[in-house]
Amino acid sequence: MTEPPRDRPAAGGVTWDAVPSRDKVGTEIFDLLAELYPICRSISGDGVRQTLSIVSEHLPLAQTEVPTGTKVFDWTVPREWNIRDAWIAAPDGRRVVDFRESNLHVLGYSTPIRARLPLTELKERVFTHPTEPDWVPYRTSYYKENWGFCLSGNQLAALEDGEYEVCIDSTLEPGSITYGEALLEGASEREVLLSTYCCHPSLANDNVSGIAFLAILGSYLCKMELRYSYRFLFSPGSIGPIAWLARNEPSLDRIAHGLVASCLGDPGPMTYKRSRRGSAEIDRAVETVFRDGDREPRIRDFVPLGGDERQFGSPGINLPVGALSRTPADEFRGYHSSADDLALVEPWALGDALHAYLAVIDTLERNHVYVSTSPKGEPQLGPRGLYRSIGGGSFEEGPILWVLNLADGDHDLLAMAERSGLPFPVLADAAELLFRHGLLER
Amino acid sequence: MTEPPRDRPAAGGVTWDAVPSRDKVGTEIFDLLAELYPICRSISGDGVRQTLSIVSEHLPLAQTEVPTGTKVFDWTVPREWNIRDAWIAAPDGRRVVDFRESNLHVLGYSTPIRARLPLTELKERVFTHPTEPDWVPYRTSYYKENWGFCLSGNQLAALEDGEYEVCIDSTLEPGSITYGEALLEGASEREVLLSTYCCHPSLANDNVSGIAFLAILGSYLCKMELRYSYRFLFSPGSIGPIAWLARNEPSLDRIAHGLVASCLGDPGPMTYKRSRRGSAEIDRAVETVFRDGDREPRIRDFVPLGGDERQFGSPGINLPVGALSRTPADEFRGYHSSADDLALVEPWALGDALHAYLAVIDTLERNHVYVSTSPKGEPQLGPRGLYRSIGGGSFEEGPILWVLNLADGDHDLLAMAERSGLPFPVLADAAELLFRHGLLER
Amino acid sequence: MTEPPRDRPAAGGVTWDAVPSRDKVGTEIFDLLAELYPICRSISGDGVRQTLSIVSEHLPLAQTEVPTGTKVFDWTVPREWNIRDAWIAAPDGRRVVDFRESNLHVLGYSTPIRARLPLTELKERVFTHPTEPDWVPYRTSYYKENWGFCLSGNQLAALEDGEYEVCIDSTLEPGSITYGEALLEGASEREVLLSTYCCHPSLANDNVSGIAFLAILGSYLCKMELRYSYRFLFSPGSIGPIAWLARNEPSLDRIAHGLVASCLGDPGPMTYKRSRRGSAEIDRAVETVFRDGDREPRIRDFVPLGGDERQFGSPGINLPVGALSRTPADEFRGYHSSADDLALVEPWALGDALHAYLAVIDTLERNHVYVSTSPKGEPQLGPRGLYRSIGGGSFEEGPILWVLNLADGDHDLLAMAERSGLPFPVLADAAELLFRHGLLER
Repeated sequence: MTEPPRDRPAAGGVTWDAVPSRDKVGTEIFDLLAELYPICRSISGDGVRQTLSIVSEHLPLAQTEVPTGTKVFDWTVPREWNIRDAWIAAPDGRRVVDFRESNLHVLGYSTPIRARLPLTELKERVFTHPTEPDWVPYRTSYYKENWGFCLSGNQLAALEDGEYEVCIDSTLEPGSITYGEALLEGASEREVLLSTYCCHPSLANDNVSGIAFLAILGSYLCKMELRYSYRFLFSPGSIGPIAWLARNEPSLDRIAHGLVASCLGDPGPMTYKRSRRGSAEIDRAVETVFRDGDREPRIRDFVPLGGDERQFGSPGINLPVGALSRTPADEFRGYHSSADDLALVEPWALGDALHAYLAVIDTLERNHVYVSTSPKGEPQLGPRGLYRSIGGGSFEEGPILWVLNLADGDHDLLAMAERSGLPFPVLADAAELLFRHGLLER
Repeated sequence: MTEPPRDRPAAGGVTWDAVPSRDKVGTEIFDLLAELYPICRSISGDGVRQTLSIVSEHLPLAQTEVPTGTKVFDWTVPREWNIRDAWIAAPDGRRVVDFRESNLHVLGYSTPIRARLPLTELKERVFTHPTEPDWVPYRTSYYKENWGFCLSGNQLAALEDGEYEVCIDSTLEPGSITYGEALLEGASEREVLLSTYCCHPSLANDNVSGIAFLAILGSYLCKMELRYSYRFLFSPGSIGPIAWLARNEPSLDRIAHGLVASCLGDPGPMTYKRSRRGSAEIDRAVETVFRDGDREPRIRDFVPLGGDERQFGSPGINLPVGALSRTPADEFRGYHSSADDLALVEPWALGDALHAYLAVIDTLERNHVYVSTSPKGEPQLGPRGLYRSIGGGSFEEGPILWVLNLADGDHDLLAMAERSGLPFPVLADAAELLFRHGLLER
Repeated sequence: MTEPPRDRPAAGGVTWDAVPSRDKVGTEIFDLLAELYPICRSISGDGVRQTLSIVSEHLPLAQTEVPTGTKVFDWTVPREWNIRDAWIAAPDGRRVVDFRESNLHVLGYSTPIRARLPLTELKERVFTHPTEPDWVPYRTSYYKENWGFCLSGNQLAALEDGEYEVCIDSTLEPGSITYGEALLEGASEREVLLSTYCCHPSLANDNVSGIAFLAILGSYLCKMELRYSYRFLFSPGSIGPIAWLARNEPSLDRIAHGLVASCLGDPGPMTYKRSRRGSAEIDRAVETVFRDGDREPRIRDFVPLGGDERQFGSPGINLPVGALSRTPADEFRGYHSSADDLALVEPWALGDALHAYLAVIDTLERNHVYVSTSPKGEPQLGPRGLYRSIGGGSFEEGPILWVLNLADGDHDLLAMAERSGLPFPVLADAAELLFRHGLLER
């Protein structure tokens, strides 16, 4: 008695069968993370280019060079910095601090120096961690010319009086900053922007994790038939998104949704920071995925402190871009120090985060505004085989009835999930079933 | 010194003097309920017609027949079902299941059958209650041709092997479905719709209670001078309201407010399920009545599961119709089973519900948008005798001052009750006093 | 490398250096309060004029007389009442009740009388406190001709049988009511209205405190360069604001914000009653000042009971005027009785309230809608000296980044304080810094 379902196009969505388990895909991300970890990155220079090349083995990237001196909105692209070596030699000639042991030892963007100086003067050029004597801090001086070293407090305390020799074999010269991007074309020109920063040296969670994570995420998404196009952006923090936004300003209205990805390897719960708009579709999608899940994620309002969401959420840009991480930068133990090493990140955490990202993408893909073709009274579901034939007992048509009732053109599926309390995928399945039966239009 | 109050028309409202006490009017409802209880009703057939005839002794109804095959929105009116007798005879000829003992024993809309069959085959035609071995469940098969019996689990377990004879002396033929309605004309053509379903057989709370309740409510309302017109609708569930809506579509905008009445006899607290609109005047009226009362009623958001509010709240209809019951169907112990019998309903509960309905009606009747005729500063109440003459002591002009302050055309009396926290009747009395003094206009 | 800050006009605000400490300025208010306390005020008469003259020594007032019989909105100005003496003499000739001991002993607006009458008749003319036998209550009869005395319960109980002589040497004749006002002109013609009532006789907190408070507040404000103009109004309750509003109706749109000041000397926490609008700028300013403070103040919704905010918040006027007091009238022990004497008010409480008023005024003065001149991406703060030069460590640019991010024309500074949770003065300082750097416009 049931009508044959009509042939209608699919609703879009993640091909879950193509996605490995959390542990397996997490190990894949971890392996790439470990490969990228040793490279010395900064907001410009060959370390960034080398990073983008390795990412391209998983997700082919187009690299863009923006020359020193280019005006991008209020900013000017700085000179390019590269470094080959750096060290401090003790009075007895022994290298007591060595860039080759950790690239954190050099103040980022240090100008070249080769000099001899007594310990008292050297100490004025040394940064230590404010609370942890074992950790080497991460420090930079991008916009004021400077040079210096970062040591652990214990290292510094062990230095004996005398004359030291210091060497920073770096260049700070006209050149360019570099960013990489990939566009996975979907059925629509409307884009989901996935952005991360690639300017931090050997810091595992913040943010080699974000780089490796997006590379592997892209390698899976590119195999799926998706409704949206997906744009991946790997760029140096602040100046990178600003340069990208300035160069792409005319086409920013293609960006329908976006996420800044970072700090995805620590074992803390997932954390979402809302877009500046606060209740954009991406915000509602993440919140619904969190609600439907069994973990205890954290949701926070937008604040103009943090990462590159500051630029996407500046008042003249105001794109619907949130930030989805595990423990946000500056909240996990080890942040901006040598303690943010490979031991801090865990494969399962990376894989779990990837599944969470895919659930958000699946939600965006499947979220439509459906409109009932039979809005007056309920449609008669029984003859279509959509209703239990024996009445009086338990009632299992909830998702179908919710979708039909709210298919008034004012509710997208996310709104139905919010109002009904039902899981989004359950409603999306019900909507696709009704759509095939001709009871809904998109 | 006070001006004589001007002669102005009354504000409408319930004539409380004409309403018996909760216990007395509850007994009146109970007696009618007990009279209607034994009749075998379904979504069509003579049981419905007999029920409507008995109701008409209290509230004269116009009966409408909608023929089998009529298209009403997405639905088609089904064939008419009638039943004279049904039984199962044991191998020894003894009737072990008998429709005359309880009309629940037959699967509703069973096609006629007379056959002999072994116990194993009979069992495939038998429905029992999923959890309670003593209860006979209520089951139907309206839209798929079927026949069967409903037994208690204990009854079924007691059947011994052997060949049984079954008989269902029913007809399922072209005919019609039947609904009854009454319109009590008030000062305005705008209507309050009071609807209930009359398709359930011998189930006392769900929903002979609703039928008897509306009949008696109508018998009192018809003696009052009311502002709104009141339309009572008794119809089979789902198909009834759909047919009524389809036939009355051009004049649905007359429906200003509405309530679906059901399950009004159990001792649980009153429960209100909001209309799909969520904050319509009827929703605000019921919530204010609940707030002003001393019981602990329950308020719930609209969900598209439940009773006929699903049809009134379908997206293309979307009338402001809530559902006001005691314990909703499928939440009280005994729901859809032989345990929903006369012992489950209590006269005081029926009478208490009637008083609650009248309080809601009184609120709708008296709710106006009043506008101050003296909006700049307070009007001088003392010379009008509306203010205490000795100043400095306690202050009792609260309701008058609230009404005057909010009589700006943006607040109806319900909004004043919500904002002030004062009981609605107190504000309504104050408004009517000020209206008689010419300080308010409607 | 930083640009020199441009020369731009100041943002307005309180000159805090010119304000004495809480204790010192509180003593100043208390001394004036003690001077005004003994005067017998009412809604008309020489007591009001004498009060306004003393206030003028601190804040020069223009006095307005509104003649008896003048129609002001719905009200008619009553006759003027003056009193010279009043007493009750016992059968033995001894004065047992004497106006010269306390002006509370006479029912306000008592008509003149000189008569002999037995105790039983006298008792019908006597008011006592409903709960406290030691207290003389404060009572009036403005709008119904009457005469009477107010006694403590103990006084009344001590009266022995016999014939008493009573005398009220008062006049109730055509005259006028009187109000005083002062306008401190600021840079803008937009006004902040500060209003209090001066119709209560010897009641210290309610409301000689409000009179003395506004006088001293005005004496400090008049020395500052302010953005708004400040209008001070001292008038008899209800009839005073109504007369003032009626006479100034064409220019009421100059009133941008307002506060009713009363009951400012008791030791209870500050209490704010919102304007009728509920979320006007004055409401948000007071709530932010309360939030940023370390006390536990109380915030309440507008209700049309209370003081003169009833008139400013009548539906046809609806000015954004809240009421800011310590413990509101009728909530402190001693209200409207002889117990509301000088012992009930404390200098520190008066001074603390004055600082709270100034904080609110400072907030109104400094609250602007700033708009970023560089809204796309963050502006580059480093070269302007607005950003720490060493990156990677702690982060102290929060207020600057919040202001820049929300400087979109939709947020005033109060909205930024609400959304960021940062103290208003911190954001105002940041905004003024950015404004001087040309990064914001007003």
